[in-house]
Amino acid sequence: MDRARRLGEFALIERYFRPLAAGRPGALGLADDAALIDVPPGRQLVVTADLLTAGVHFLPDDPPDLIARKALRVNLSDLAAMAARPLAYFLAAAFPADIDETWIAAFAGGLATDQAEFDVALMGGDTTATTGPLTLSITALGTVEAGKELRRSGARPGDLVAVSGTIGDGVLGLARLQGRLAPLPGDQHLIDRYRLPQPRLALAQQLIGLASAGLDVSDGLVADLGHICETSGLAATIEAGRLPLSPPARKALERDSSLIAALVTGGDDYELLFTAPAARERELAGLPVTIIGRMEEGRGVTVLDSSGRALQLASAGFQHF
Amino acid sequence: MDRARRLGEFALIERYFRPLAAGRPGALGLADDAALIDVPPGRQLVVTADLLTAGVHFLPDDPPDLIARKALRVNLSDLAAMAARPLAYFLAAAFPADIDETWIAAFAGGLATDQAEFDVALMGGDTTATTGPLTLSITALGTVEAGKELRRSGARPGDLVAVSGTIGDGVLGLARLQGRLAPLPGDQHLIDRYRLPQPRLALAQQLIGLASAGLDVSDGLVADLGHICETSGLAATIEAGRLPLSPPARKALERDSSLIAALVTGGDDYELLFTAPAARERELAGLPVTIIGRMEEGRGVTVLDSSGRALQLASAGFQHF
Repeated sequence: MDRARRLGEFALIERYFRPLAAGRPGALGLADDAALIDVPPGRQLVVTADLLTAGVHFLPDDPPDLIARKALRVNLSDLAAMAARPLAYFLAAAFPADIDETWIAAFAGGLATDQAEFDVALMGGDTTATTGPLTLSITALGTVEAGKELRRSGARPGDLVAVSGTIGDGVLGLARLQGRLAPLPGDQHLIDRYRLPQPRLALAQQLIGLASAGLDVSDGLVADLGHICETSGLAATIEAGRLPLSPPARKALERDSSLIAALVTGGDDYELLFTAPAARERELAGLPVTIIGRMEEGRGVTVLDSSGRALQLASAGFQHF
Repeated sequence: MDRARRLGEFALIERYFRPLAAGRPGALGLADDAALIDVPPGRQLVVTADLLTAGVHFLPDDPPDLIARKALRVNLSDLAAMAARPLAYFLAAAFPADIDETWIAAFAGGLATDQAEFDVALMGGDTTATTGPLTLSITALGTVEAGKELRRSGARPGDLVAVSGTIGDGVLGLARLQGRLAPLPGDQHLIDRYRLPQPRLALAQQLIGLASAGLDVSDGLVADLGHICETSGLAATIEAGRLPLSPPARKALERDSSLIAALVTGGDDYELLFTAPAARERELAGLPVTIIGRMEEGRGVTVLDSSGRALQLASAGFQHF
């Protein structure tokens, strides 16, 4: 019965959110109207804002610490997509009335964990009660050496297409949680990947000066590669057989080969997808990335199956099963 | 039946929000993962985030252009509170399914109007559908000459307390809209003031080097003066008879003198409340502000009525009637 509303907004901020701003004098203890931030000379500010809603971007019953960390991490992934280093974030949260203080404490604990992991701090925000679903808006600020940011445009014909980590785990994890995918060995890994993306911040720093274009996979591999194609004025062909898959994703695909469409169009991967000149293939070999295809003249994204036929994908991006 | 959902998020952004980023190359056409922002040398970044929910911060039936402008203006008011000049803003919006394209168009039109008025531009954001109330999260970025920002702390004993514009219009306007206040001559002004705050950005620039502490009145005059008292370690006494009131607010008060409590504790004023050394009273005379009291040793805020008695205020801040 210890409802967040009863605690009051000021007490809530003081008890759970102010500690997240400790060590950042410019946050002014979350007690002023705005925060003060110094941008180091020679570096450009990089800003991204993502909105997450229960039932759309996470499940209402997901553990609160993981909801918090996912909300922060999808923003950090956007910073990684621009090759920026994180600096600070601002959290605007609309909490439903049935969220209690224990929930808030766990939520704030999740943020604290990831602040330590990614060297970032809360520097401001706002909270309100809502009659609707839990809604989290995070604005993340980072910096990049001026002129060195990674953009979606900039790919050239002949460039290699590469991706970090593994693809398709998130969409399979969500399907498992929703009971649309039968249990399979190692499926907890898929669920973990859905709930806790890994922003590739360190890898992004290594792509500066190497990648010609890049972004993070949030809408789905095909849709996001489509964004690179559009902004670069090119086409791309990737081979399904070269896709980096986790062992449980590979197992799911062995059981049902039609899942390939879900893997390449499902979202929630938060891996870096980028292009690089073919001449620099050897440098890519030293990075935790997999080459999956090539940029070409033309328009659109083609996914070839093992026999070289183009897969028919009903809709590119965010269409789960 | 032209639902926003049918239009699709990408089309929505392209048609209505991308034009709001025109003329800002760093927005990358809202087509990349994040925006790039240059902070001029010698200036510090000032960042604020405010969350507005239908039914709490505005009424669901308020005109969409005014909802948009209020959401932007309460953030600009926070920048004014720090004496910052606005630079850019990021909008994260959760739209209910019954919002149609006409509504979105009017909403975006409101943003365009205020962008022109306050020389600020949309540089990024996110949209999603929600089963709950319309929820708007804006993060506004501004800059201030390093070290010149206005803070809540810094008031000294003997400092004058002053406020811009008029106080209490917003809370009366909301009461009129909700039928809790009987009609009175000029009450449209009160409604306008509730729906469309005036961020005091120009005045804020004139307070640099003059005000010792300051903020914008959003929680209510007494609660916000209380914030200055707390962070400055002082008390404040203000005189109800010196409060700047609009003609309709004065009329409402003549009709019901007990409304004074609502005027000083109601929120939604978005005026600048600040302290300044008594020795600089003459400089204040040249500004559109009213001196309403004085800072003292001690704790808490006292409001004196015309006979010098302390008003008994049930609760300081955000308690409408």
